[in-house]
Amino acid sequence: MIGRTRWAIPEGYIPETSTGPEPEMESHETICLLNAGDADAHVQVTVYFEDRDPAGPYELSVPAERTRHVQFNDFEDPEIPRGTAFASVIESDRRVVCQHTRLDSRQAENALLSTVAFPGDS
Amino acid sequence: MIGRTRWAIPEGYIPETSTGPEPEMESHETICLLNAGDADAHVQVTVYFEDRDPAGPYELSVPAERTRHVQFNDFEDPEIPRGTAFASVIESDRRVVCQHTRLDSRQAENALLSTVAFPGDS
Amino acid sequence: MIGRTRWAIPEGYIPETSTGPEPEMESHETICLLNAGDADAHVQVTVYFEDRDPAGPYELSVPAERTRHVQFNDFEDPEIPRGTAFASVIESDRRVVCQHTRLDSRQAENALLSTVAFPGDS
Amino acid sequence: MIGRTRWAIPEGYIPETSTGPEPEMESHETICLLNAGDADAHVQVTVYFEDRDPAGPYELSVPAERTRHVQFNDFEDPEIPRGTAFASVIESDRRVVCQHTRLDSRQAENALLSTVAFPGDS
Repeated sequence: MIGRTRWAIPEGYIPETSTGPEPEMESHETICLLNAGDADAHVQVTVYFEDRDPAGPYELSVPAERTRHVQFNDFEDPEIPRGTAFASVIESDRRVVCQHTRLDSRQAENALLSTVAFPGDS
Repeated sequence: MIGRTRWAIPEGYIPETSTGPEPEMESHETICLLNAGDADAHVQVTVYFEDRDPAGPYELSVPAERTRHVQFNDFEDPEIPRGTAFASVIESDRRVVCQHTRLDSRQAENALLSTVAFPGDS
Repeated sequence: MIGRTRWAIPEGYIPETSTGPEPEMESHETICLLNAGDADAHVQVTVYFEDRDPAGPYELSVPAERTRHVQFNDFEDPEIPRGTAFASVIESDRRVVCQHTRLDSRQAENALLSTVAFPGDS
Repeated sequence: MIGRTRWAIPEGYIPETSTGPEPEMESHETICLLNAGDADAHVQVTVYFEDRDPAGPYELSVPAERTRHVQFNDFEDPEIPRGTAFASVIESDRRVVCQHTRLDSRQAENALLSTVAFPGDS
């Protein structure tokens, strides 16, 4: 099955402000996860900062043959602070594929970035 | 020959609206496929969602020594719903190379994202 | 030495129009090449299309311990047509690293995309 | 531990101008480094140009279980020239993960690009 069980995203930043209609145009930082396998995947996300200990792991699941587009904006207990640099490691008990996307709507027109995350060896 | 026979793109989203002259500035989600080999490639695209069974496979071919830039917007039977998160797996009988690009023209100025897709092992 | 001798970029498109002061804000499609080694690299770029035979190879060199940011816009004999989908394969006699970037200034504000190209096996 | 000890980023360019409130909206070119391991990483960045010898290595550290988002704008002795094409190689004594991001605010609305850097073999 295509994928890996560990992924890293060194870039992370939730802009503090947004422009345009919510929720569609709210600034957001997203992990897109694909589980193309036939069993549910249980995923743990650890968030790293520049000046404090890591947060998490945040737990979520990706059902078999489903995708989930998860926003760091929605993480709770603790929330990810806005306007702060962070990074993340994603670990799964099943192979998944992971892509990182940001919508930045701080200014009147939105900007986008995306990259497939860095895969671990297995 | 450069390429792989399986690729994954965890990110997918066709914005519901567009701004600017069509078709050039219509919001679109694209798979760019390159077949640098000397035989035609037959490609199947399966589309995964967050809350329903996968759609497809959508079939297409990439002739030898040609590229094809295929829009998810154009997939039929069934169409890919707009404003909905999805992901995709691309399988080919020949090695191809796959890149994912979005033009988002919901606002007055367009935004772009692109990444080489995640390659399978073969 | 870091790098590979073969790279592929499935996405390619030179917008037909630009906005803003030239040459800085002219729409352009770029291959960024890094030769971190101690010998010059001789590079050949082949360009693939959707509906015609490949063009090239276009030849260029990247001196030892130098980078070159080459624009498809500047390729000659033949020129790369504007407003047309293409893809490319980069082959080098020395290991180099390759990244693809587009500046799209068709609308008043520019948009950017970038990705490391897909590396071959050697 | 996830990561590699060597990375390359062929693209590099610090726009000469910016629009919008500083420092948040100043045009910048960033290396995002993640050290998910339990020992500090010592990192050296070498910067390559089109027409002169490489600069650096610039030295920095990434503490255990921390991320650092480093701006080329802040490199000193020598400074990285604005409006000039460059590339970089990142070497670390511990495995880190590296992503490249640019915020371009030359025009009224910002544009973004990002990609995971190219990993070396170890």
